[in-house]
Amino acid sequence: MRVRIIAQTQFHGEVASALTDGVWYPDMAGTDAANLSEFAGRACYQSWSRPNEATSTNEGYIDHIIEVGHNTVLEHGTVSIYIDEVSRSFTHEMIRHRHNSYSQLSQRFVVQGKPEKGKSPFITPALFRDSELAGTILLAAWEEAMHSYDALLGLAETILSTMTPTDQSGTAHRRKEAREAARCVLPNMTPTAIIVSGNHSAWRDFLTKRASLHADAEIREVAMQIFYELEMSETNLYQDFRVMMDDRGRSYLVRDAED
Amino acid sequence: MRVRIIAQTQFHGEVASALTDGVWYPDMAGTDAANLSEFAGRACYQSWSRPNEATSTNEGYIDHIIEVGHNTVLEHGTVSIYIDEVSRSFTHEMIRHRHNSYSQLSQRFVVQGKPEKGKSPFITPALFRDSELAGTILLAAWEEAMHSYDALLGLAETILSTMTPTDQSGTAHRRKEAREAARCVLPNMTPTAIIVSGNHSAWRDFLTKRASLHADAEIREVAMQIFYELEMSETNLYQDFRVMMDDRGRSYLVRDAED
Amino acid sequence: MRVRIIAQTQFHGEVASALTDGVWYPDMAGTDAANLSEFAGRACYQSWSRPNEATSTNEGYIDHIIEVGHNTVLEHGTVSIYIDEVSRSFTHEMIRHRHNSYSQLSQRFVVQGKPEKGKSPFITPALFRDSELAGTILLAAWEEAMHSYDALLGLAETILSTMTPTDQSGTAHRRKEAREAARCVLPNMTPTAIIVSGNHSAWRDFLTKRASLHADAEIREVAMQIFYELEMSETNLYQDFRVMMDDRGRSYLVRDAED
Amino acid sequence: MRVRIIAQTQFHGEVASALTDGVWYPDMAGTDAANLSEFAGRACYQSWSRPNEATSTNEGYIDHIIEVGHNTVLEHGTVSIYIDEVSRSFTHEMIRHRHNSYSQLSQRFVVQGKPEKGKSPFITPALFRDSELAGTILLAAWEEAMHSYDALLGLAETILSTMTPTDQSGTAHRRKEAREAARCVLPNMTPTAIIVSGNHSAWRDFLTKRASLHADAEIREVAMQIFYELEMSETNLYQDFRVMMDDRGRSYLVRDAED
Repeated sequence: MRVRIIAQTQFHGEVASALTDGVWYPDMAGTDAANLSEFAGRACYQSWSRPNEATSTNEGYIDHIIEVGHNTVLEHGTVSIYIDEVSRSFTHEMIRHRHNSYSQLSQRFVVQGKPEKGKSPFITPALFRDSELAGTILLAAWEEAMHSYDALLGLAETILSTMTPTDQSGTAHRRKEAREAARCVLPNMTPTAIIVSGNHSAWRDFLTKRASLHADAEIREVAMQIFYELEMSETNLYQDFRVMMDDRGRSYLVRDAED
Repeated sequence: MRVRIIAQTQFHGEVASALTDGVWYPDMAGTDAANLSEFAGRACYQSWSRPNEATSTNEGYIDHIIEVGHNTVLEHGTVSIYIDEVSRSFTHEMIRHRHNSYSQLSQRFVVQGKPEKGKSPFITPALFRDSELAGTILLAAWEEAMHSYDALLGLAETILSTMTPTDQSGTAHRRKEAREAARCVLPNMTPTAIIVSGNHSAWRDFLTKRASLHADAEIREVAMQIFYELEMSETNLYQDFRVMMDDRGRSYLVRDAED
Repeated sequence: MRVRIIAQTQFHGEVASALTDGVWYPDMAGTDAANLSEFAGRACYQSWSRPNEATSTNEGYIDHIIEVGHNTVLEHGTVSIYIDEVSRSFTHEMIRHRHNSYSQLSQRFVVQGKPEKGKSPFITPALFRDSELAGTILLAAWEEAMHSYDALLGLAETILSTMTPTDQSGTAHRRKEAREAARCVLPNMTPTAIIVSGNHSAWRDFLTKRASLHADAEIREVAMQIFYELEMSETNLYQDFRVMMDDRGRSYLVRDAED
Repeated sequence: MRVRIIAQTQFHGEVASALTDGVWYPDMAGTDAANLSEFAGRACYQSWSRPNEATSTNEGYIDHIIEVGHNTVLEHGTVSIYIDEVSRSFTHEMIRHRHNSYSQLSQRFVVQGKPEKGKSPFITPALFRDSELAGTILLAAWEEAMHSYDALLGLAETILSTMTPTDQSGTAHRRKEAREAARCVLPNMTPTAIIVSGNHSAWRDFLTKRASLHADAEIREVAMQIFYELEMSETNLYQDFRVMMDDRGRSYLVRDAED
């Protein structure tokens, strides 16, 4: 799997500071979305001058916000993540998180089964990674599915060529109809790519649910990768997550409050 | 495919009427959600006494609401629909409609490939329904996939039995892990079941997008079934949708404003 | 304040039961939305035959759902509530709950300050209910505000009559513009009415946040009323909420898990 | 009113380009969110090499996206806007747009009526800006409201001091309760400040509804300011909006498709 941050909120700290006549200014030790969240939180209470010692740093302020559950101020900053070399089972679970925004590789518009050079044609579940026998079964299953897919693509074009063309029936449209029908044999392990954008409150909720011990193995692995990316780029906003290890050496997350 | 309304909003018209001291009362020719929407709309303007001739019936009132785009009043009533004998391609598209609520058959918790008596083991795309050759290819593809799935289920259990058990590692948990891994070979045409609940504004948006000429063939068929169910039970709320026929005799919807 | 359920989800239990070939049937001791939620939950796991003793009643099943946090199955049923004799401060807080749907009395379309017979012209905060002095101040403040409002309404009409009429400038439109401008002096305690529809997961979240010890006094009172209504009509879905009493004898809610 | 962009999406174009092995690269004439949207759109179709002439520029690509209504790709980029010197009527309408995120000055936590130096103590509706008589009425109304507010703040503290303190009853909590009660007399024209974050699809929807001829005068003015800010910073994403002038010389927006 590949997980890359491709966009994120940039905070215009000097503009924000000027709006408070310079009373408030971003914490140099804070990051863009974290400082934006602090600015938004302080706007509610007009506490620009950092009156409390415990919350006078951005880290301390966000810690307090998380503790009291004032999650709406964490919604202002967003991160867009590109994820590929993942399965359609993963995306079918991922897109249930309705607060995020998604753009996904379409099986209706793109012929499947032509992996880029150097990439695996299908996604192997973690449990099967070290099993040669599993590898053999998966490869055979993939090749059979591809064989059926190609046969159906061709057959669909033949069937369509005998039918009354529809209003929209250029070649491009006919090909879309063929792919739409033929994709029925594509397995869950077919690779896909998806761009997911979400605010930090939504990402925190996603991590809480999907990097947990109970999550599906693949989404949990992706969630851990996402966590590492988010934690590196917006440390203060994820300060309460702790990386744990299960009995098989796989990592997962808990939040301080859950300990 | 099967599409059945299993729940819907019941309007307590007498309670609502009493709140207006009896000035307003439900239109006997209207239905529950449509009368509820009228009540909600009139609450905004305190127009309980039906001052305008053109909107004095529920049908006329809702027609006006749709025309001026006051969609929020259509959000109050909801309908829950059970859908099965559909593919996972369909549900992967369906659940992108984030305003609805979903509960779907889990491939992590339920062993796949054991269809109920009298039901097809897999979902045949419409384009292939009349092709014997396609039927042969699909059946073979399905059987190969099932063969791989069963082999992987067994292999997964074997691999898991040699591993350190996890904290949660009863038999039930091990089986879930096995299904989670083995499902990678299940094709899109694997049948699934889903319960979808949504308000009428969300259903209208769904129909506009998915019963259109440009939609995927399967979701378009499901959307048409959903339309017939909704139109029968809440006629006034769908009065601007028109059933059209494309060049191959397949139905789709347009809305009056789009004509 | 008045809080009345005016609509709610009706479950077609016999249709749902038939979809399982009669293996599952609604629990007679359960209610509509609670049985619908159970049906939706069991559809995920195909556990129609109630295999576990602990979850074989609807109450037990929902208790389990709440405990494991499978909140999405609580989204299928909805309740619509009519609320009036509340302030605009209340609605300004209420409508932040974005998962609900709202229709509210418009200050742009309805002239304010003409209470129905027997109703108070303004909303008195709980803290001031027993204070005669407060009553005097509030009444004076209200009358001054109404006086300014009426003067501004008249002045606005005069100003508008000297202006180039706009494209939309019938009498109705001019009056809307006048009310729009004159409402600037209306105080927070101006009464309003709102219809709120939401699913049970959203209502549970609302109660958790707004019937808590930390909530604003008015929204907390409304939330308690809503709780009593919801708890009576859908008991199982609210079984983990406990009514507590603060040091001044005012009630609030905690959930079992929070104890 | 003041409207300032304080944060917005920064696109890591080089990272995105590398993910396509350099086949795609951002259009130098495009901006961050517009290029991100193009990247997301092309990921769905794997059209990295810009195969069509008409959509080979970012402007052309986004024009096509808007035309076909593929709005989800416009959701990836967000903008956070600080708005103040606006009324509570405005924010009560603004926050109905549920896809945005909000942080607003709290009347429970901040004593009202102490405007910053050089700022007007209250918000004058546009219709009244040139009327001396209106100015007199508004100022008197404001002063009366402030007088009542101060009296009620003091009275509330007195009442609270005689009551059993609650669990949370430090001085800070008592002051919050006093402000909560006393704010009942604050008028709609009380100034407020709000930070609004939203994705470009949500901002486009907001502008379509609130910069229209039918919108409330104040929200329409704010929406026009927001449009000018958005249009300057993300030109391509707002290319179909046209500024029009009504019969009284006030600007509003229409979209090309609506002409």
